[in-house]
Amino acid sequence: MEVKLLSHTPEPERVVATAARLCYAPEAAAEVWSGFTPEKQQAFIGKLVNYGHFSPFEHVVFTFAITGVSRALSHQLVRHRIASYSQRSQRYIDEAAFAVVVPPTVAADPAAREEFARVIGQIQAGYNRLTALGVPKEDARYLLPNACQTQLIMTMNARSLLHFFRLRCCRRAQWEIRELAWKIRREVVKVAPLLFREAGPACLVAGKCAEGTMTCGRPYTREEVDKVGSGQVGLDDPGGTAEAGETTTD
Amino acid sequence: MEVKLLSHTPEPERVVATAARLCYAPEAAAEVWSGFTPEKQQAFIGKLVNYGHFSPFEHVVFTFAITGVSRALSHQLVRHRIASYSQRSQRYIDEAAFAVVVPPTVAADPAAREEFARVIGQIQAGYNRLTALGVPKEDARYLLPNACQTQLIMTMNARSLLHFFRLRCCRRAQWEIRELAWKIRREVVKVAPLLFREAGPACLVAGKCAEGTMTCGRPYTREEVDKVGSGQVGLDDPGGTAEAGETTTD
Amino acid sequence: MEVKLLSHTPEPERVVATAARLCYAPEAAAEVWSGFTPEKQQAFIGKLVNYGHFSPFEHVVFTFAITGVSRALSHQLVRHRIASYSQRSQRYIDEAAFAVVVPPTVAADPAAREEFARVIGQIQAGYNRLTALGVPKEDARYLLPNACQTQLIMTMNARSLLHFFRLRCCRRAQWEIRELAWKIRREVVKVAPLLFREAGPACLVAGKCAEGTMTCGRPYTREEVDKVGSGQVGLDDPGGTAEAGETTTD
Amino acid sequence: MEVKLLSHTPEPERVVATAARLCYAPEAAAEVWSGFTPEKQQAFIGKLVNYGHFSPFEHVVFTFAITGVSRALSHQLVRHRIASYSQRSQRYIDEAAFAVVVPPTVAADPAAREEFARVIGQIQAGYNRLTALGVPKEDARYLLPNACQTQLIMTMNARSLLHFFRLRCCRRAQWEIRELAWKIRREVVKVAPLLFREAGPACLVAGKCAEGTMTCGRPYTREEVDKVGSGQVGLDDPGGTAEAGETTTD
Repeated sequence: MEVKLLSHTPEPERVVATAARLCYAPEAAAEVWSGFTPEKQQAFIGKLVNYGHFSPFEHVVFTFAITGVSRALSHQLVRHRIASYSQRSQRYIDEAAFAVVVPPTVAADPAAREEFARVIGQIQAGYNRLTALGVPKEDARYLLPNACQTQLIMTMNARSLLHFFRLRCCRRAQWEIRELAWKIRREVVKVAPLLFREAGPACLVAGKCAEGTMTCGRPYTREEVDKVGSGQVGLDDPGGTAEAGETTTD
Repeated sequence: MEVKLLSHTPEPERVVATAARLCYAPEAAAEVWSGFTPEKQQAFIGKLVNYGHFSPFEHVVFTFAITGVSRALSHQLVRHRIASYSQRSQRYIDEAAFAVVVPPTVAADPAAREEFARVIGQIQAGYNRLTALGVPKEDARYLLPNACQTQLIMTMNARSLLHFFRLRCCRRAQWEIRELAWKIRREVVKVAPLLFREAGPACLVAGKCAEGTMTCGRPYTREEVDKVGSGQVGLDDPGGTAEAGETTTD
Repeated sequence: MEVKLLSHTPEPERVVATAARLCYAPEAAAEVWSGFTPEKQQAFIGKLVNYGHFSPFEHVVFTFAITGVSRALSHQLVRHRIASYSQRSQRYIDEAAFAVVVPPTVAADPAAREEFARVIGQIQAGYNRLTALGVPKEDARYLLPNACQTQLIMTMNARSLLHFFRLRCCRRAQWEIRELAWKIRREVVKVAPLLFREAGPACLVAGKCAEGTMTCGRPYTREEVDKVGSGQVGLDDPGGTAEAGETTTD
Repeated sequence: MEVKLLSHTPEPERVVATAARLCYAPEAAAEVWSGFTPEKQQAFIGKLVNYGHFSPFEHVVFTFAITGVSRALSHQLVRHRIASYSQRSQRYIDEAAFAVVVPPTVAADPAAREEFARVIGQIQAGYNRLTALGVPKEDARYLLPNACQTQLIMTMNARSLLHFFRLRCCRRAQWEIRELAWKIRREVVKVAPLLFREAGPACLVAGKCAEGTMTCGRPYTREEVDKVGSGQVGLDDPGGTAEAGETTTD
């Protein structure tokens, strides 16, 4: 899995601060904009985060190129409706040599790994035979597995990202989308640290688990979030480390 | 594939007519509502359709149970963001005996059909061996094919449905989602004929193909839409009749 | 202000329970639907509320006729984007005898009330003189005040309503939209008590004020919510009782 | 009215072209991105516009500071739900010296203009007396007219902007929001000419009026759109030139 921040609203923190300040300021928008020094931005955004006033966060967006993820992930991902997606089409692209994502629990067990690779090989062979028989690519792909790699361009605004992190940075989120969430978080923290200072799973942000009786029982601490967020430590996934789950071709 | 209209806004045409009329009427909402006889509704909705004023169509929604469709279809379907979905989860449900959708082009060719069935069998065996080895269901499913059947509850408002039909009733839409679009259309026409009288692909609705140089060159006529819409004739899919594509277990 | 529930998804609790259950159930959608007795619905929806799994709540919608509210209210209301609105148009409707909403703080003070009525009279006279001079209604209305009454048809799904209540049932919400929120809540509680059992301001729902240092300091108790929710007691608005703020013509 | 493009996605045309190309390209996202020369972008975006494939246009957004517009305009504007808004609050800001927008039909007739100014003066005096009597600003503003000036920060993506232009550049759109639409169009054409080359009212874009029997009967020509779009000629508003409707304080 690779997450590349392709583009984003320039000066994101100034945009958010200006939008928020405009609601309560007697002066004109242009003055609000020009009057925001980095220091003032910092103080002002701190207040917004404390009050939970996140609507101004919608004004800044982040566009990512996401590659080497599975179709299992992308099917979940596009359920986040306040976002825009462009995805590699299996209808038109020839998958004569597709790559796959191997789940950590499979990668960690030699027998499982061998079985997984064997079936993937059978699928690849079947796909190729179907297209050789004249079946259109868009129909041969009915054989392709969830593990099949895809790539997307995704654009999401900062408010929607905060919601995404609440749900998907959680230890109970599915491991692949959880890895994606943390990798996206790393990228946006670099370019907009004030906006995403408090971003993370519900246990951190709301101070309360959102999974009820299905809680993992291990709420994130700020220290842990900072370490995972900066890549100092990996995601301790129940089924294996995220590193072991790194996408591979087969 | 089976599409069942589970629930919908009662008196959908009266709701739309009332909402539209309210914008221009001096009288109170309750009077507008009580004053709408079926005849007046018909005349009024006819005007809305002619003018292309579809925002009042948002007030009525339709909830469908969609079963026996593939994950290839559902991944496309949930890209329609102005709608609500609840979908069978492969993360939690045991797929030890999954059913599949067989594409018409595969079903129509004995060699392709045999090949398809064989690979599906290999996938099923692989999935079962992985779970027997202790791999969690949510990871074993990385082997499951796009053909794997799923089911969803989908709620969409009438305006969003009209957009869905423009795109997905088109002859160039992927055959499975095209079949779904026409089956949904049949259901809503039964309960709200005035609202969906003109519903259909862009060639019918806008009088102009939306596919540019990739046009199929065979614009729908009203007569053809009525026949297909009422189920008198099948969808003439390039790859076979829709009937041949009916979902099967394997 | 009058709020009338014009229409809603029939059997709303059964729809929500079915949609939620479908995600984890091996059986077909039709069986899930037919198998839900009221007792099972109750237990199941209770779990959803506890877990905070509200996406199935999107499948049911409620359509309201809202009359006798101000344009100050409607401008705020339509900022809730996950909803559909049809509103009386000042562009086309003759406002030669418009009605107004009088704020409670104005109504409670004879001097303010007299001043308010006088200026409203001046506005009405000005509007009428402009139209007599041949100014189109759509331009004469630039004189019309925020107090001017309007009416809307609004459709909102249950998930979006829960969000609306969190923000707008709060004691710090503007008094008129707060009154609207509680009146809407009364209507939906009658027809879907299980879905809206826990509906209310953030202090009740999240157990934590969302207004930071601007908190009112008086979190709602469940008992108080039930009393206000059922109309046993009025809204104790800082600026007067909601009753005093009832809309009037002037 | 002043429209200032505060910020936008950098390299908007490259982002759109990359997102669109990704769907059909065998190569990785990073290669698609780096391989897009301006010439290739131009050819590719031309195809998208011809085919009507606008979903990749969602990936780029534009943030505007909009000042000197009326609350009549802002109430209409925020009905466009696929956008983000932050607006000057009349609840918190003292309007002891508010400015207004004067409609062109009023400005063009001395008697109407005088009447308008007089009533605005009465409203201002009434507002000030109410606040002097201790009525909170949020309640005194119930007297404020639609003409009262407001300011907003608005962020909209390119696809949503195209829709906005279709509706609001139309000669039958209300004059103030029509002026806004054309001014926004001028700004985005400067920074993303390829994306907005064909942007405009429905008569230009769809080649067909969307107003049915209420058509103005004067479809825009490309030449006229280019002239109005570049500011060479004003908007020929039925009620006067847009210049005459420029916002003023009173």
